[in-house]
Amino acid sequence: MEIDQKNQEKTGSTRVYDWVKTLPCKIKTKALEIAKKTKKVGKDDPRRIIHSLKVGFALTLVSLFYYVRPLYNGFGSLGMWAVFTVVVVFEFSVGATLCKSMNRGFATMLAGALGVGVQELASLLGDKGEPIVLGFFVFILAATSTFSRFFPHIKARYDYGVLIFILTFSLVSISGYRADKIIELAHQRLSTILLGGAICIIISIFVCPVWAGQDLHNLVASNLEKLASFLEGFGGEYFEVYGDEDSGMVPKEDKSFLLGYKTVLNTKANEETLANFAWWEPGHGSFQFRHPWKQYLKIGVLIRKCAYQIDALSAYIKSNIQTPTEFKIKIQKPCMKMSSEFGKALKELATAIKTMTNPSSTSIHIENSKVAIDELKIAMDVALKERFDLLKIVPAITVASILMDIIKSIEEISDSIHELSHQAHFKNVEKKLSLEKLPQLLHRGSVKPVSDVGGGGGGGGEGGGGDHVIIEVHEKSLDSPENGNPHAPNTSSRDVVL
Amino acid sequence: MEIDQKNQEKTGSTRVYDWVKTLPCKIKTKALEIAKKTKKVGKDDPRRIIHSLKVGFALTLVSLFYYVRPLYNGFGSLGMWAVFTVVVVFEFSVGATLCKSMNRGFATMLAGALGVGVQELASLLGDKGEPIVLGFFVFILAATSTFSRFFPHIKARYDYGVLIFILTFSLVSISGYRADKIIELAHQRLSTILLGGAICIIISIFVCPVWAGQDLHNLVASNLEKLASFLEGFGGEYFEVYGDEDSGMVPKEDKSFLLGYKTVLNTKANEETLANFAWWEPGHGSFQFRHPWKQYLKIGVLIRKCAYQIDALSAYIKSNIQTPTEFKIKIQKPCMKMSSEFGKALKELATAIKTMTNPSSTSIHIENSKVAIDELKIAMDVALKERFDLLKIVPAITVASILMDIIKSIEEISDSIHELSHQAHFKNVEKKLSLEKLPQLLHRGSVKPVSDVGGGGGGGGEGGGGDHVIIEVHEKSLDSPENGNPHAPNTSSRDVVL
Repeated sequence: MEIDQKNQEKTGSTRVYDWVKTLPCKIKTKALEIAKKTKKVGKDDPRRIIHSLKVGFALTLVSLFYYVRPLYNGFGSLGMWAVFTVVVVFEFSVGATLCKSMNRGFATMLAGALGVGVQELASLLGDKGEPIVLGFFVFILAATSTFSRFFPHIKARYDYGVLIFILTFSLVSISGYRADKIIELAHQRLSTILLGGAICIIISIFVCPVWAGQDLHNLVASNLEKLASFLEGFGGEYFEVYGDEDSGMVPKEDKSFLLGYKTVLNTKANEETLANFAWWEPGHGSFQFRHPWKQYLKIGVLIRKCAYQIDALSAYIKSNIQTPTEFKIKIQKPCMKMSSEFGKALKELATAIKTMTNPSSTSIHIENSKVAIDELKIAMDVALKERFDLLKIVPAITVASILMDIIKSIEEISDSIHELSHQAHFKNVEKKLSLEKLPQLLHRGSVKPVSDVGGGGGGGGEGGGGDHVIIEVHEKSLDSPENGNPHAPNTSSRDVVL
Repeated sequence: MEIDQKNQEKTGSTRVYDWVKTLPCKIKTKALEIAKKTKKVGKDDPRRIIHSLKVGFALTLVSLFYYVRPLYNGFGSLGMWAVFTVVVVFEFSVGATLCKSMNRGFATMLAGALGVGVQELASLLGDKGEPIVLGFFVFILAATSTFSRFFPHIKARYDYGVLIFILTFSLVSISGYRADKIIELAHQRLSTILLGGAICIIISIFVCPVWAGQDLHNLVASNLEKLASFLEGFGGEYFEVYGDEDSGMVPKEDKSFLLGYKTVLNTKANEETLANFAWWEPGHGSFQFRHPWKQYLKIGVLIRKCAYQIDALSAYIKSNIQTPTEFKIKIQKPCMKMSSEFGKALKELATAIKTMTNPSSTSIHIENSKVAIDELKIAMDVALKERFDLLKIVPAITVASILMDIIKSIEEISDSIHELSHQAHFKNVEKKLSLEKLPQLLHRGSVKPVSDVGGGGGGGGEGGGGDHVIIEVHEKSLDSPENGNPHAPNTSSRDVVL
């Protein structure tokens, strides 16, 4: 016991010494950690560094209102509002900056006018009545405005505007009670806000712009790619077949493709924010003003639905140990083909979005996977005759069943991307197909060889091996009325959607 | 053709008339629509109405700084900052209000001090050097602060503080270049902000408070209930058996329980926001300061995992048409029992969270569902001998397989809630169990009858029919080291978690 106590005391006194001794080391570790984190944050998206510099630049520019005397004389201490506006309004994307600037500008104007009006009205009632009337109006407007922020539509798009409305109205009507030059004050505040907002908008649009719309567009495409990578690799992972060139399997070591889909499960909030900001953005790059951003949200819902199925599927990757090898061999080929064709279809759709072209060749992969489903059904039918232990093959059957169900999700995703391609006038591309693939396609009845293309007489069906012909892929889904878009691409339903 | 043109002209002229004629009707419809929406928003959460009134009240209170002359003389036009603070800082929940007030207060203090320091430093360099030095510091601090907002940890908890830091630093250092009374200005601004913040905090805590922590707590419990409702009802829905009292089925008309889980899929963002706000809240009700809010996020992840499985399951509800009735009958009883026991287990867990008691009786339902799984396996084994068409029974097998997999998720959820119950010192309740249930439980080895409870000599196991004895349920999971919490409840690992 005594030895224990002494040890404890010794520990107590040396602990302080140790702490002081290790302090520089700890600080160094912490600093290194922060440096590492900083590097990661910057590396993940280098636009963040540029954005930070842009904010610094805008703020320094606005401070000119104080430094340069003529400007200062013009605006006085109200130049402060320009600083204020820049700090609060300058956001990462152009859409967010526009959203905040517009909201701030219009809300200030509206609330300023209303504030002056209410102030005039209150001043008619004499010294005693004035504060009561003003207090009443402030209370009513603050309460109703605050309540309106709970409406989902207002929350999504005008939340900041409502906030600024309450703020400006309170400031103008209340301070008007003391300051006599109320209209001049409101006017000066408005002009400095407009100036600050204008600086933010100009810098954010013209210096390395970050478009929320472009980000949304890329996010949806990359989500599709993540699902595609999983599905392309799933077959090889489940049946433990690697390095097969035909099915495009990746080596066993790199398992990242199995986890990529997990981030897709929770992108809803992000997608909605981006879509709301994109709504404010002017036309940029390949995107026109009023690009059908809402359609991206619809596609996002369907992508997540598919991701949930993939999540269910991923639970079975390790379950294949107990499955009898003979049964696995029977279903392996069609399952792997199905999974791989799903992956290819999704990759094609992702590419179509990225390049903004009509996803013309997706249907081939969908048709191929339907063939694989038929093959799988036959294989499973045959397998039953061999009387496997049902309990042992349950996980494998479940995998096959979920895989077969994924086709529905992929068809839905494909349909919604076709709709997007109509609404946003995606380019049509003539797809070059290798002749080798022809016989099967002809068999499925999905494409017809076009004879006499551009004067070339060699389009004769099952001919020369490595030769190429141009084939137009006629897709049912492009013209089918289920897409809700039965007209030609020129009469799109964009206005209805947004 | 001419008739067509005339018709069109006629339509053109009458269109304006029609428009004007229908205008009052349209306005009326729109007004009714808004009224309906307003009613819905208020009805969904009546605290929203109270919050709006609270904001109105706080703002009117702050305007006293202008109305009442002695206060006005004390603060001058800087009372404006109090108005400003109230509008910007007053949020729906106590946590959010505290988060913003604290951030605003500390950031203003820090930035104010730094601004004054930089201003003093710059003034040493003469009229020409001053703006250059100030501009340099504004640029550097604005850029680094903006960049720091991209760090996830800072973004979640101190985003507003960083914003206010940039704002205040710019204002103080820049305006200091003109105004000579810079320290007085900084001091006055800080005191008005503190005053505004204090009013917000006091009103938000003492007038009908809305606690983010309580909301998070309720959200997790209600999410569990939604999954429970689905699982309890799923068996009846899939096998089309309704009104069975034992399994607690609901009548066929009300299908809402089948869709409730869908909102659970996307609660991640909401849960994280609430947890971040809850972190700021002082102890309230049954929640101590530093309640293990992070554990709720862990539970949330597991709940969503289960919801994804349920989503996969729900796709098969309509697939039972093709399944041979004989096969369905064979698996019906264990499947329905399993599904119903899952539901009961989750309901118990939800109740445990709601009432903040140890979830002692969940393990009974988990054990029961394990019995059902064993029964299902036997039933499926028997079924195979009858040579069903494998293709037709695939969906039913998939349903059974996914159901069997859900047990893992439920055990994980149960474990994590047990961990929460340790960390947050949930109350222990002695569970009264009907003796009728004893034999089965004893058979499963999960509970032992406690003899001589409180001096009563009647605890003799399989005795009288309707009699009740108190039974302590010893749960493996409570003491198992996998929970990461092997100690007694008093030495909880709260500090590690938060």
